Amino acid sequence: MTTLLQVDFDFTGPFGKEMSTMLIGLAESINNEPGLIWKIWTENPKEQLGGGVYLFESEAYAQAYLTMHAARLKEMGVKEIRGNIFEINLPLSTINNAPLDNAARNEVIKDEQ
Amino acid sequence: MTTLLQVDFDFTGPFGKEMSTMLIGLAESINNEPGLIWKIWTENPKEQLGGGVYLFESEAYAQAYLTMHAARLKEMGVKEIRGNIFEINLPLSTINNAPLDNAARNEVIKDEQ
Repeated sequence: MTTLLQVDFDFTGPFGKEMSTMLIGLAESINNEPGLIWKIWTENPKEQLGGGVYLFESEAYAQAYLTMHAARLKEMGVKEIRGNIFEINLPLSTINNAPLDNAARNEVIKDEQ
Repeated sequence: MTTLLQVDFDFTGPFGKEMSTMLIGLAESINNEPGLIWKIWTENPKEQLGGGVYLFESEAYAQAYLTMHAARLKEMGVKEIRGNIFEINLPLSTINNAPLDNAARNEVIKDEQ
């Protein structure tokens, strides 16, 4: 079942364009993570937060990524990491124009099996 | 600037199909909220959490919605509500196939002005 992972953590920057430039390599590597469909990169300079919202093909993939990512952040000195894994309610999300074409297709395929 | 709002809160259900049926009217009303682009409905029956990830046209719209939504949830008896507002790093999100066509278009228009 397609699964959403939301992560945020204390982060002092860089933010914005400087962050984009510095983390291109990391972003490219994330495309190789098992089961990843997409990631939205989130940042809040005022609150000093970094993070992301990820869509994965399954809860197992989301959980494996969260475990790896939290360990990587801790190695980088990040202390407070919040990670939540959620199922997606597709009928309600579809009403609200959520961009879940891949997720919806997966569910339909599953229902047909 | 397009802004992401992530909300989650303690929730005892209903989840899944029962939630879809019960909250169709609420979902339809959310399409009328000022500045909303989309919402992904999130739920976690194991951890007893409800929530959502929203894309808004601006931080002001996201903040206004969070204030209204938190008050509505408190009236319904929900005690623990977590809401975070984030800017989106578009260059990095684009590398990771994030579904942000609307957001990207807004940024391009803004840069041209």
